[in-house]
Amino acid sequence: MPAAGVSARTGRVAPAVVLLSGGLDSSTVLAVARSDGFAPHALTVRYGQRHAREIEAARKVAEALGAQRHLVVDVDLAAFGGSALTSADIPVPRNALGNEASGIPPTYVPARNTVLLSLALAYAETVGADDLYIGVNAVDYSGYPDCRPEFVAAFERMANLATRAGVAEGRTVAVHAPLSGLTKAEIIRLGLSLGVDYALTHSCYDPDPSGRPCGGCDSCLLRARGFAEAGVADPLLR
Amino acid sequence: MPAAGVSARTGRVAPAVVLLSGGLDSSTVLAVARSDGFAPHALTVRYGQRHAREIEAARKVAEALGAQRHLVVDVDLAAFGGSALTSADIPVPRNALGNEASGIPPTYVPARNTVLLSLALAYAETVGADDLYIGVNAVDYSGYPDCRPEFVAAFERMANLATRAGVAEGRTVAVHAPLSGLTKAEIIRLGLSLGVDYALTHSCYDPDPSGRPCGGCDSCLLRARGFAEAGVADPLLR
Repeated sequence: MPAAGVSARTGRVAPAVVLLSGGLDSSTVLAVARSDGFAPHALTVRYGQRHAREIEAARKVAEALGAQRHLVVDVDLAAFGGSALTSADIPVPRNALGNEASGIPPTYVPARNTVLLSLALAYAETVGADDLYIGVNAVDYSGYPDCRPEFVAAFERMANLATRAGVAEGRTVAVHAPLSGLTKAEIIRLGLSLGVDYALTHSCYDPDPSGRPCGGCDSCLLRARGFAEAGVADPLLR
Repeated sequence: MPAAGVSARTGRVAPAVVLLSGGLDSSTVLAVARSDGFAPHALTVRYGQRHAREIEAARKVAEALGAQRHLVVDVDLAAFGGSALTSADIPVPRNALGNEASGIPPTYVPARNTVLLSLALAYAETVGADDLYIGVNAVDYSGYPDCRPEFVAAFERMANLATRAGVAEGRTVAVHAPLSGLTKAEIIRLGLSLGVDYALTHSCYDPDPSGRPCGGCDSCLLRARGFAEAGVADPLLR
């Protein structure tokens, strides 16, 4: 049996497609994919976010963690509207983490992870990868339906019926969500153990024009709570 | 029980999202969605096709068939390469229909229907639609894995775990593929009975600069065979 990451099909280090936003979670996932023995192809999707700061973060992280290639692809999710992350008309909530029980927050982007994984699947087909990595997290997931393990498993089943690999060549597509059961503190500890430089990452939903995090959105609050629980200072705030 | 197309939730004519390429199949599907009683929101995805002629066809068809709205969204599938439909380096095969048994043709766009349905799902969430329509066809499908009923059913299962509608509001997303079991001739007869003007549609994978169909690609050959079997002249060729 070949080592993890070495393709039984080709005998070489296998490629894997890693969805990389430039945030804390996806940067950690890129390090996990590399640690699993894959040659990571990082995919950043520019989907109409209100700021481009995280694309820049993704570029730095991909380079620092030795991604084989980093592709930035555009899809205009803002054309649909409906989310505070793509529409200037919907404000990003501040200091609202205590309201998690009230349901799906306005920062939810409709069908975002479905779209992201679909694009990862397209990329995987063209580079011959059978493995996709996504940094969804079921613990601190802020109420997004498409971050749950049931969703990831259903996407994987669908992917195996959708592609040349799964159908014509009898291969199997796997969707890895290695952060799924981890708290933010555990993710940070994992990333640090794998050499992630969190100073390069970007989490804020609503930074100021210079790129400084707002400190009050859900994403900033979850990040701060994670570093506090991990007992580590956030290098971004130094 | 409300009539088809009338929402049990709102009591009004329900919206449905229809994927519309401007080709023969998707134009027929738009007419079917309207005939099913829905208010159709047509979605055309510009994914890096080598020609824009079909976007123009989609606009005309959406208008002629009374779509409530027509949205054109960009996604750069050409960035991935790997298909004759998005890459100038891969030729579109001519007169190759007899080779169907040889597998998936080079005009297959990696994970295309997965990406298209994902975008339709995002659009559906923002307009409150629970119904998606796609013109995939399992009879004349030219060997594409993501045109089969198993794929559509798996996407539907995934969609119900992915969205606010399916998860937080207990609604059900349905993916309709009304052409799935029909031959091209049956699709044409169905469309004609629903008032589709096929002179507005566009099927060719590789038209000349003036937009005239090549007559030799798989899509042209399937279209010609369909009109011949339906015993009707193709109004596009008049």
